[in-house]
Amino acid sequence: MSEDLDFDILRSAHIELKVTDLERSREFYVKTLGLVETEATSNQIYLRGVEDRSHHCLVLTEAAKPSVGHLSFRVRTEKDLDMLAKLFNGGKLSYRWIQPGSLEKGQGRALRLQDPLGFPMEFFFEMEEAEWLWQSFDRHLGARIMRIDHFNLFVSDVKEASEWYVKKLGFQCTEYTETEDEIPKLWATWLKRKPTVHDVALMIGSGPRVHHAGFYVPDQQAILRTADLLASKGYLRSMERGPGRHGISNAFFLYLRDPDGHRIELYTGDYLSVDPGWKPIRWKLNDPQRQTFWGAPAPESWFKEASEVDSVFQEEAAQD
Amino acid sequence: MSEDLDFDILRSAHIELKVTDLERSREFYVKTLGLVETEATSNQIYLRGVEDRSHHCLVLTEAAKPSVGHLSFRVRTEKDLDMLAKLFNGGKLSYRWIQPGSLEKGQGRALRLQDPLGFPMEFFFEMEEAEWLWQSFDRHLGARIMRIDHFNLFVSDVKEASEWYVKKLGFQCTEYTETEDEIPKLWATWLKRKPTVHDVALMIGSGPRVHHAGFYVPDQQAILRTADLLASKGYLRSMERGPGRHGISNAFFLYLRDPDGHRIELYTGDYLSVDPGWKPIRWKLNDPQRQTFWGAPAPESWFKEASEVDSVFQEEAAQD
Amino acid sequence: MSEDLDFDILRSAHIELKVTDLERSREFYVKTLGLVETEATSNQIYLRGVEDRSHHCLVLTEAAKPSVGHLSFRVRTEKDLDMLAKLFNGGKLSYRWIQPGSLEKGQGRALRLQDPLGFPMEFFFEMEEAEWLWQSFDRHLGARIMRIDHFNLFVSDVKEASEWYVKKLGFQCTEYTETEDEIPKLWATWLKRKPTVHDVALMIGSGPRVHHAGFYVPDQQAILRTADLLASKGYLRSMERGPGRHGISNAFFLYLRDPDGHRIELYTGDYLSVDPGWKPIRWKLNDPQRQTFWGAPAPESWFKEASEVDSVFQEEAAQD
Amino acid sequence: MSEDLDFDILRSAHIELKVTDLERSREFYVKTLGLVETEATSNQIYLRGVEDRSHHCLVLTEAAKPSVGHLSFRVRTEKDLDMLAKLFNGGKLSYRWIQPGSLEKGQGRALRLQDPLGFPMEFFFEMEEAEWLWQSFDRHLGARIMRIDHFNLFVSDVKEASEWYVKKLGFQCTEYTETEDEIPKLWATWLKRKPTVHDVALMIGSGPRVHHAGFYVPDQQAILRTADLLASKGYLRSMERGPGRHGISNAFFLYLRDPDGHRIELYTGDYLSVDPGWKPIRWKLNDPQRQTFWGAPAPESWFKEASEVDSVFQEEAAQD
Repeated sequence: MSEDLDFDILRSAHIELKVTDLERSREFYVKTLGLVETEATSNQIYLRGVEDRSHHCLVLTEAAKPSVGHLSFRVRTEKDLDMLAKLFNGGKLSYRWIQPGSLEKGQGRALRLQDPLGFPMEFFFEMEEAEWLWQSFDRHLGARIMRIDHFNLFVSDVKEASEWYVKKLGFQCTEYTETEDEIPKLWATWLKRKPTVHDVALMIGSGPRVHHAGFYVPDQQAILRTADLLASKGYLRSMERGPGRHGISNAFFLYLRDPDGHRIELYTGDYLSVDPGWKPIRWKLNDPQRQTFWGAPAPESWFKEASEVDSVFQEEAAQD
Repeated sequence: MSEDLDFDILRSAHIELKVTDLERSREFYVKTLGLVETEATSNQIYLRGVEDRSHHCLVLTEAAKPSVGHLSFRVRTEKDLDMLAKLFNGGKLSYRWIQPGSLEKGQGRALRLQDPLGFPMEFFFEMEEAEWLWQSFDRHLGARIMRIDHFNLFVSDVKEASEWYVKKLGFQCTEYTETEDEIPKLWATWLKRKPTVHDVALMIGSGPRVHHAGFYVPDQQAILRTADLLASKGYLRSMERGPGRHGISNAFFLYLRDPDGHRIELYTGDYLSVDPGWKPIRWKLNDPQRQTFWGAPAPESWFKEASEVDSVFQEEAAQD
Repeated sequence: MSEDLDFDILRSAHIELKVTDLERSREFYVKTLGLVETEATSNQIYLRGVEDRSHHCLVLTEAAKPSVGHLSFRVRTEKDLDMLAKLFNGGKLSYRWIQPGSLEKGQGRALRLQDPLGFPMEFFFEMEEAEWLWQSFDRHLGARIMRIDHFNLFVSDVKEASEWYVKKLGFQCTEYTETEDEIPKLWATWLKRKPTVHDVALMIGSGPRVHHAGFYVPDQQAILRTADLLASKGYLRSMERGPGRHGISNAFFLYLRDPDGHRIELYTGDYLSVDPGWKPIRWKLNDPQRQTFWGAPAPESWFKEASEVDSVFQEEAAQD
Repeated sequence: MSEDLDFDILRSAHIELKVTDLERSREFYVKTLGLVETEATSNQIYLRGVEDRSHHCLVLTEAAKPSVGHLSFRVRTEKDLDMLAKLFNGGKLSYRWIQPGSLEKGQGRALRLQDPLGFPMEFFFEMEEAEWLWQSFDRHLGARIMRIDHFNLFVSDVKEASEWYVKKLGFQCTEYTETEDEIPKLWATWLKRKPTVHDVALMIGSGPRVHHAGFYVPDQQAILRTADLLASKGYLRSMERGPGRHGISNAFFLYLRDPDGHRIELYTGDYLSVDPGWKPIRWKLNDPQRQTFWGAPAPESWFKEASEVDSVFQEEAAQD
């Protein structure tokens, strides 16, 4: 695993969502879900959770149509970025350096590439500090989101995609789903760097598309309360699935669709996976408790709809 | 309302469910849901909740096929039973007296009749005391059911059925659903004697059938915990709807089907309705938040399936 | 009990607290605890809970020094007020009629008297409706207080005081504490009209003084959350006792002191007492679980400090 | 930090408590707190939490008097044990190897030493797997303990003790308390290897003694429920402090004393500390919110009483 690599990816760290109406998104993410606004520009809002000590875990960027700008991972040292660049060079993968303050506020030097699966990935080490609100309970509002937890991605070949994450980037598999064919086919994998269930989940589907970003909330009560709040504030159609408990990960969840259709998961109650040699938990594709431990199926939209992704190179032109 | 009547019905008090396998039902109601067994005979189990100070709120009776034996209401005084008998006489409704210890354990003299809607109703005043387990938290198991809360009934004519309860028996309406026709049609009513949302709900449907009996649990956590327990113990198909929040009543709920298909609601968080002159809350039939405040629709089985009811006179012959 | 009386007191309905700085009290009760402001004048604020459909359950009146203006009970009909006046006449108790709109907003005709125990009591039937916020969860803030629940009073002779409430006013005793002397002495009683644990508790102490007013919150989580909020907002010294569970009543509680020293209890999870013939629960004075089921003793201030009460006749002069 | 060391300590992993009556301890830890019994011998019980996939996180060993047998840490690889032995050699610290199956069931080769602070420490890599009960909710009983979280130790010199952990063993400081003297004195430190608040806390006091072992529970409800259970089962005096919220760590807690006086903390709701460069949170000794965020002080026993520790060499003789 990671022991043989010369870099150390710490965790999934933030996602950039392109949205078509910044104020409408602020109403949803800040005034309803309670994410904390660290900074805003004319076309961007930088948000963090109440446990975050750094600048942002979600960037909203106004754009003509909804998409995912990039998925970002934090590394342990500045030097890890150079090591990653070397890895990509070796694999003949194009990448670009984002200079501090050029495209993204609050962040140091960042390395962006379109990964072999087609996703706009970013790696960075430095991020500005932000006020820690962890014990300012009067500022824990709405869903009381603590931090980002994971990205969930649609890929056409789960096996191939998982190998990229595990063999090249040092992720470990905690749980997976496979078919019950004579030669089982890998259907989905949950891959982690930080010692929880996952930083990235890969699910079979028409990709590259982002299925959802998961945000951690403190308890089940925060999720039930959010459902009540959304229902009271007219966001009835935003609740796509749940509240319920997952089989995989065991987490308690609620899936939301933001005003642009991006899918967000409120997520709590998975487990720590600190020990080495975690034997991945295997789920059969036809197990009714796999997706929802209590048995209720997910709606069709959940299986089909997802967010398109950008090219990390497209802005370059725009900026010229 | 009740002020003009010469009897005082206190509340819905217990239900008798005919079940086809007493041990299988004990496994479900006692060992999984945690109802407390007060007494059992060769063909009956008497159960109570952890808040109950009296003998039972649920009677399970073994029978060849599932049905509802009777729905029972407690009155304020022994004399109220005679006043009710007089009322039924006046209305030429047949009834019978059940002597203490004859058909039902732990209960004093009871008056049973087939009401004009076709349901097997019972009224009683006296019931044996049972140990109060309210502060024996080590005996609060499973769903931690506190008490019975209400009966929900399918009737073919909600207006007529509601008039029986309101005008003859002194119930008050707290909430109701009606169609949006030019002349609105009454679709469902929530009727109370005790100062909560209801003791009886009447819903349009093929009746007389019992849609469900509602049991009160202390909090939302008890409901989520029950879902986890049921899923762990193989009762996946017992969870028919929920957990979720109702629009009507605002209660948090989970609907279960027992091993014979009888429907049970775990229910918590409605409101007190002590003040006189409660203006009934009106719900439009096509309001998506009416049934589930969060918007998710109920499954088809919930609208169609219900328990058949017995005749209160049928046992007489059997006993001769 | 009440059956022999010709009036029907429904429940404890509101309390008037005299406070020395209205803005400071608004900060505490509205902005921190989340009570809803129905109406305000230059020297008064009328507050209600999120379950209330009527104008107020708490009146804050600016005054030179803190005290309790009056304790108010709602009756079932307007005529009950005249019956109560007749009762007081028979007992040669002075009383006064408060005309609608004269001293208190939102309320109909009210009957005030200094009761034989020295407390400023009020009875009323009519109160203006207010918007029901029960399903406007975005307006359930702070402690999410639902309604007033009870008054707790220091009296010098609990037996005599209890007789006034039980024999004259028709209250019933649900729980009581007595000493373990050969001839036990009554130490405290919990008395109810609405079918819960109590509307009034009487505790031995230097009286007439109001020990606290209890407000109902939806669940334990609301109480823990309030403790977090108070701690975050600098109200550290406002938390006098708890969170914890009572032996008596079994309720989960947190005692607060408002900026003027008035004591407020946040309270949840007691039981329904609908059935007739409730056998009062007896607690021994030296039972360590009586006050706190978990055993932790209350601080000394809790036993000694309480709010002084006004005369219901004193304002008359002021108004001339 | 750890980057420069040639071994990797993963986390605090288990504690051995010497108890004087094994059955009495089983009643407390298994039947009341709900820890799961993996294996037992005539004089030992091996316990795990519901999230644990390995053999034990608590060993109870019957003995003539109560003490702490050893504190154990898991390392990432078998080779790390040899590297640690080398470190101790270099420091002229005596140690011993415990062969698999000799003194402790379920565990591979272990390295034990009396550390420079006087504590009986153990390091191991291998441990037998045990059935994962994480989704067997019917087996989550009592406090629903998930895993061990940390050790809290009384040491006479916090600075010196912290340097041993940080400089020699690679721990990182997340929070600390210091006096407000002109030259501040270090009063307590919270040190972690796994990315949470701590694996070890060091507090000034008469040492070497173990103040408590912390066990992680899923939510606040599990702690409130445990208080209710203990109160119902006669363990009133076992509840020493709480439930409450810590300032330091922000966790929600309840401190218990087991039948031999060993202190156990039920603990939930701290934060993840995955990012590098965590700036330690500083607490002033005289901050009333430091120990209890809500302000209530800890009882005197909490500051004074703790468990004595054994020598890791004493059993050797006994076995010869």
